[in-house]
Amino acid sequence: MTSSPVAHANHWVITLVCADRPGIVHAVSGAIVEAHGNIVESQQFSSDDTGRFFMRLQVESPAERRDFEAALAPVIARYDMTSVIDVVGRPLRTLVLASSAAHCVNDLLFRQRGGQVPVEIPLVLSNHGTLRDLVGFYGVPFESLPITDAASKRAFEARVIAAVDGLDIELVVLARYMQILSPELCERLAGRMINIHHSFLPGFKGANPYRQAHARGVKLIGATAHFVTGDLDEGPIIEQNVVRVDHSRTPAELVAIGQDEESRTLTQAVKWFAENRVLLDGARTIIFR
Amino acid sequence: MTSSPVAHANHWVITLVCADRPGIVHAVSGAIVEAHGNIVESQQFSSDDTGRFFMRLQVESPAERRDFEAALAPVIARYDMTSVIDVVGRPLRTLVLASSAAHCVNDLLFRQRGGQVPVEIPLVLSNHGTLRDLVGFYGVPFESLPITDAASKRAFEARVIAAVDGLDIELVVLARYMQILSPELCERLAGRMINIHHSFLPGFKGANPYRQAHARGVKLIGATAHFVTGDLDEGPIIEQNVVRVDHSRTPAELVAIGQDEESRTLTQAVKWFAENRVLLDGARTIIFR
Amino acid sequence: MTSSPVAHANHWVITLVCADRPGIVHAVSGAIVEAHGNIVESQQFSSDDTGRFFMRLQVESPAERRDFEAALAPVIARYDMTSVIDVVGRPLRTLVLASSAAHCVNDLLFRQRGGQVPVEIPLVLSNHGTLRDLVGFYGVPFESLPITDAASKRAFEARVIAAVDGLDIELVVLARYMQILSPELCERLAGRMINIHHSFLPGFKGANPYRQAHARGVKLIGATAHFVTGDLDEGPIIEQNVVRVDHSRTPAELVAIGQDEESRTLTQAVKWFAENRVLLDGARTIIFR
Amino acid sequence: MTSSPVAHANHWVITLVCADRPGIVHAVSGAIVEAHGNIVESQQFSSDDTGRFFMRLQVESPAERRDFEAALAPVIARYDMTSVIDVVGRPLRTLVLASSAAHCVNDLLFRQRGGQVPVEIPLVLSNHGTLRDLVGFYGVPFESLPITDAASKRAFEARVIAAVDGLDIELVVLARYMQILSPELCERLAGRMINIHHSFLPGFKGANPYRQAHARGVKLIGATAHFVTGDLDEGPIIEQNVVRVDHSRTPAELVAIGQDEESRTLTQAVKWFAENRVLLDGARTIIFR
Repeated sequence: MTSSPVAHANHWVITLVCADRPGIVHAVSGAIVEAHGNIVESQQFSSDDTGRFFMRLQVESPAERRDFEAALAPVIARYDMTSVIDVVGRPLRTLVLASSAAHCVNDLLFRQRGGQVPVEIPLVLSNHGTLRDLVGFYGVPFESLPITDAASKRAFEARVIAAVDGLDIELVVLARYMQILSPELCERLAGRMINIHHSFLPGFKGANPYRQAHARGVKLIGATAHFVTGDLDEGPIIEQNVVRVDHSRTPAELVAIGQDEESRTLTQAVKWFAENRVLLDGARTIIFR
Repeated sequence: MTSSPVAHANHWVITLVCADRPGIVHAVSGAIVEAHGNIVESQQFSSDDTGRFFMRLQVESPAERRDFEAALAPVIARYDMTSVIDVVGRPLRTLVLASSAAHCVNDLLFRQRGGQVPVEIPLVLSNHGTLRDLVGFYGVPFESLPITDAASKRAFEARVIAAVDGLDIELVVLARYMQILSPELCERLAGRMINIHHSFLPGFKGANPYRQAHARGVKLIGATAHFVTGDLDEGPIIEQNVVRVDHSRTPAELVAIGQDEESRTLTQAVKWFAENRVLLDGARTIIFR
Repeated sequence: MTSSPVAHANHWVITLVCADRPGIVHAVSGAIVEAHGNIVESQQFSSDDTGRFFMRLQVESPAERRDFEAALAPVIARYDMTSVIDVVGRPLRTLVLASSAAHCVNDLLFRQRGGQVPVEIPLVLSNHGTLRDLVGFYGVPFESLPITDAASKRAFEARVIAAVDGLDIELVVLARYMQILSPELCERLAGRMINIHHSFLPGFKGANPYRQAHARGVKLIGATAHFVTGDLDEGPIIEQNVVRVDHSRTPAELVAIGQDEESRTLTQAVKWFAENRVLLDGARTIIFR
Repeated sequence: MTSSPVAHANHWVITLVCADRPGIVHAVSGAIVEAHGNIVESQQFSSDDTGRFFMRLQVESPAERRDFEAALAPVIARYDMTSVIDVVGRPLRTLVLASSAAHCVNDLLFRQRGGQVPVEIPLVLSNHGTLRDLVGFYGVPFESLPITDAASKRAFEARVIAAVDGLDIELVVLARYMQILSPELCERLAGRMINIHHSFLPGFKGANPYRQAHARGVKLIGATAHFVTGDLDEGPIIEQNVVRVDHSRTPAELVAIGQDEESRTLTQAVKWFAENRVLLDGARTIIFR
């Protein structure tokens, strides 16, 4: 409703996931009526693959958090729902991991500062020092810890875990972090760590895929943002983009073009995640754009 | 819900439009629970521009039409809703008006026959005879009535009205029908007549816009499908597409490229309309894709 | 030159491929001057990968074929060029192989008839009878030869070879022909047989890729047109397109969306080939659009 | 040619424009042979609209500038050509004018620093102080001169002219500079000043076009980069892009989406201009991509 009659309304975002059965929407909307809420935005989806029901709502309500949660609690319990109740626009605490490539980090920090991506970034952690000035310009703390062997790699990952715990991190973004993560870290951060990688039609295995793409004369190159799982580059896909190229492009030009796609695709995925628009349905994502 | 426990369920599509206020979703979902329905798909939107609320639902329910409508009737009355209740996939009765260009008619008939666009077309009416064979191939009746002066134009429009009434027409598609319609006909068919026209950045007025687009060296050309209103080419937009061109294209090539965009844009708009996915919000459309 | 001063000019297209070295363009343009020709369109490319030089020209010249070829012959010999000299717009003799899916055949025949694709199609050959009426509507001969075992498959391929030889076929188009070709046929028609297949990010192996794409929640699906080689679906790529999809699409809807991409991608590839715009550079293509 | 046999070759870019007539390519390539040059890249176009011939070459040659120019001089004189001969990759001296919006300036500076756009920027000049820190971060000098009345506007434009003359400026970029330029300045910088503005289908006149676009429910919004002429926003188009939007976008979101298109479209146009890929053909551009 445009001009809400509700005085001093809070603006809530709610996501709910449960086994699908009749009556869920009625039960949820009943709880919202009880909390004097008005549904401003609502999306739902029933998955044929998993039999699960997904819902995302934005609600204006004068209720305080405690009362609002209390109104929804019985419904959440009755349908055994996984739920999130949050304030719309609250910046998500985000840790960025990077190596030496600047393009993804720059795009993310620029748009974060411009208010386009609701995250706050208490730390950028890199295994190189290259990005120190860039990150500093945006007023974001930067640390670099070189990785040269197994021990320094373990130290780096220990620092990641300490940062996640000590800085109340809700999302970890791999902004062209070029190290393979340990399975333990992948598992620990499952569902809250996003990676970006280049994508081609067809896909290429092995080193230097841009050179392979050039050699095969592909006409489209792109990028995929996905959740990290133990199976490298195979986690649930959040967003993909491609752009047209032709035979005259050198491998170096393909890299530059691919980097643009990586930047915008990763930033888009982070934005949707921070807005609670990304839900997991088995091996795939539901995106409530 | 994937495997509905409901025996012999009917599959309904419902659209509801009313002034926005709290409690609508709860009231609607309550009526659906009462009809033993399960919401399979649901989209809603509150317009900041007009203060109106829009909803589209797909519901599985064992209820027969009479009972299903009876369950919803009190809600529709209470909120003073404009409503449609229909069977999912029922082919919309569609009249096609054409002139001599084949591209839009061919695309529409091919996809209609392939089951991609839920319409049935009892008549293609043209002011030329050019398309008789093409239309006949698809087993669709074809009539041509030449327009040479004001009297023959009135006769053509009278035939349109007779067809709309006599053939239970629910949608009129102008598939490159190159005559200007009378204001009376536009008004009579408001909200159920869709037109297609080419679109450029920037727009061009006057004759031969493709030649103008060539002369200005535009880099994108496209098409817009819209509802017809009295204000020519200015009705609410349903769908738009563009494609990239360059300086080497002749005006004739621009025309061919533009025709492809016209075909796919018009067919898409007709498909969405036939699926009850297009709702009017003042001068614009809400598209529940 | 727009208004050529040349009386009764012929309009030639020339493609030339040779090892790259200085002076080629000067030698070629000298031969054209000698034939009183005017270069209307010219594109060239030097491949870093193979060290080969590629050129495509369109030339207006009053010379007859014999004289025009005679003027170019010394240059072609001196640089050991692979060459084509043809009349611009001459329809390419094209054999279409199909199974039961209509979308690619319909798109190709409709655009061929509309003059958008310079091919003439003396035969559509299918292992099913499904498309007989559609092909007949366009006035194109149609034959079906069922494939049920190894012997009938050999018979089908023998018919393909007989058609290629007997009908002066210059291009074979696999318009969703769903049989695997024998290595002998692939080799015999190398460089003049084009196939279309669906493409995904990432690629999927095995049966029912649309179902796999749905299960993985891919956000883009597309199509690739390529030359057929012995290595199935791995020949040099001619054209690729993708379109955006989301989680709400059923596998059946993904198929329909993918078919649209297949149609337009295959038709585009055939058009470019027929216009002598596709040249082979090892494992990839040079496309002079 | 990949591995040029030429020792210490220089890499030249040449653009040539003249009235179209036979023999031009032969004459130009002859002069290049004379300078022991090898044509690495070549594009040409004959305009049906103006009867003019356009050519862009990249040539490797051991000749020094004086000798190289001397070899081409007779051809340039004979055909009365407008010509540019430059070193490939030489950074173009570029003055950026801005107001308070950061998106275009940030994108341009980031890619300039990353080596993706061959320009050097000795000054960003703004009528606001907002961008001082951002510009300073990239190590680029920044000046702000407030515009409050006709006199301060004249002073600003005088500073522009002084900068163009004093800093050897070859290109002026209006990176969301929100002041209308005087006709004198437009004329003085004709053909070397590029502007960016938002674009819609259909176009909208007057204030707050994003609000109008929202009200009309447009489905595509975009941006156009063009040369500045006296006729505001109507100069020859260099590049255009669009992106899809829907009814749920607020005017503020449309602005953010539009800004992304503005950034990438302007940067692309500047890159092409700096690479000598943009030539004027009357009211339109020839882009040799």
